[in-house]
Amino acid sequence: MGNNSAIPAYERHPTAQVVTLNDQLFLIDCGEGTQMQLSRYRIRRSRINHIFISHLHGDHYFGLPGLINSMGLLGREHDLHVYAPAALQKIIQLQFDTASTELPFHLVFHPLQKEEVLIDTDKFSAECFLVKHRIECWGFIIREKRKPRRIDRERVFGYNIPANYYEKLQMGFDYTDKNGEVIKNEMVTIANIPSRGYAYCADTIYDTAIAEKVKGITLLYHEATYTKELEQRAASRFHSTTIQAAAIASLANAKALLLGHFSSKYETLDIFLEEASAVFKDTQLALEGVTYLVK
Amino acid sequence: MGNNSAIPAYERHPTAQVVTLNDQLFLIDCGEGTQMQLSRYRIRRSRINHIFISHLHGDHYFGLPGLINSMGLLGREHDLHVYAPAALQKIIQLQFDTASTELPFHLVFHPLQKEEVLIDTDKFSAECFLVKHRIECWGFIIREKRKPRRIDRERVFGYNIPANYYEKLQMGFDYTDKNGEVIKNEMVTIANIPSRGYAYCADTIYDTAIAEKVKGITLLYHEATYTKELEQRAASRFHSTTIQAAAIASLANAKALLLGHFSSKYETLDIFLEEASAVFKDTQLALEGVTYLVK
Repeated sequence: MGNNSAIPAYERHPTAQVVTLNDQLFLIDCGEGTQMQLSRYRIRRSRINHIFISHLHGDHYFGLPGLINSMGLLGREHDLHVYAPAALQKIIQLQFDTASTELPFHLVFHPLQKEEVLIDTDKFSAECFLVKHRIECWGFIIREKRKPRRIDRERVFGYNIPANYYEKLQMGFDYTDKNGEVIKNEMVTIANIPSRGYAYCADTIYDTAIAEKVKGITLLYHEATYTKELEQRAASRFHSTTIQAAAIASLANAKALLLGHFSSKYETLDIFLEEASAVFKDTQLALEGVTYLVK
Repeated sequence: MGNNSAIPAYERHPTAQVVTLNDQLFLIDCGEGTQMQLSRYRIRRSRINHIFISHLHGDHYFGLPGLINSMGLLGREHDLHVYAPAALQKIIQLQFDTASTELPFHLVFHPLQKEEVLIDTDKFSAECFLVKHRIECWGFIIREKRKPRRIDRERVFGYNIPANYYEKLQMGFDYTDKNGEVIKNEMVTIANIPSRGYAYCADTIYDTAIAEKVKGITLLYHEATYTKELEQRAASRFHSTTIQAAAIASLANAKALLLGHFSSKYETLDIFLEEASAVFKDTQLALEGVTYLVK
């Protein structure tokens, strides 16, 4: 939804990303204007149940009060979970108290406190980890959870296996029918492809410790505010360059890299791709309105 | 910059208006996305020195912290004056403290406390007045100040009148030269056209007391959230309808009326113009990106 750094420029917006996993939409960061971007790209905000905020620089959360407000006005009734640095709760509370806002849904606030798993369901997990910025700042990993094996729909119907046993099949168990006949697991299931993960490295200075935290990730988003010639400026402002982001992807053995948080000083972005992909081949630029497959 | 009510819709944005008076730009209200709208319409934010916030519903100020932040990042050094309900200062302070934001300019906060003149210079004045909404809410009037008479450039050069006497000429004084010869004021000046005023009636229920407060104004902006058939809903939400806005313009004997703050339930706006102009002829819709002359 937004790939620019602090000052919106060249029709690029401050940071916001939507991660889709089956019927779940996760929103990561929510810069000013995110609710308009969601409308523009026809993303149903009612399906967003979890919002992750990396840190409390305005370009990463100034769109959040407005989004929450609109969700209320649109009659949302189901819970909304927000994972963010603790101070955000006070800010939003103050804003809503001042406006006498009463939400028709439950806003569940989860202050980030340590590196940990934030959500753990049978379909996905979400965890947070620290990155290094001028103020407290977090990265997030969303991982799909897959059963080890998939049901082979074409073959399973040839046997009389009750549907409530499918989950066991997916876990690798054989099935024994009423007559004591054993149907071997391999006959009705297929090995699954490995679970995928998306890691979001918010605003951070170059820090190789991050590579450890996102080791083996399928798709790594890493900020690249500057091109390589501005390495000094990047360091002084606790940001990263193209080749630093690429180095982290490489050290982490990530499958692919996505770059974003481009400084407003750049009108065009080709050089970001050029520089980073020279270090890490499978690099793409995070462009607004574009969907990237995690594969 | 923004003519929509709370939920952005159909590419319409939450409330924000820029009023231009010679080299002065005034910003009235600052809904989410205002800084992007300023960029889109190439309005130089460095020339905005006074910002007026009517009330603390998010759609009237959620764009302000981001705008102020960007002004800082862009190196602004001159003072910025914000006139708003007192609680806004606490909100912005909390946001900036949390982000360790240090502005390179002086942000001068003026809490609105009573109906009064807020700014009074020799070129313009700005005043605030109460309107009736669910929470504390203010309207604003910006008035141009003109001297009674204008210098007649073609004729004044025929006489030997020192330039530092021009201001007195504009006030209607005659000039007596060294030889005691009197140059009558009418010979070198022309009667000026009357000073103009712009009144902004923020979110309000229909209240005829407002007509008194904006009596004789040149251009009246009045909210019209709903069409006339939703008069009940308008009242219950402390908003106005088309014909109520027009009635205020008529009672106030305003020269012209501008309507805005359209509800998100309306995709097209023709009916607003139709209904209001049946009651008050010189009505226009406040459209984004359009400049309206106060004449």
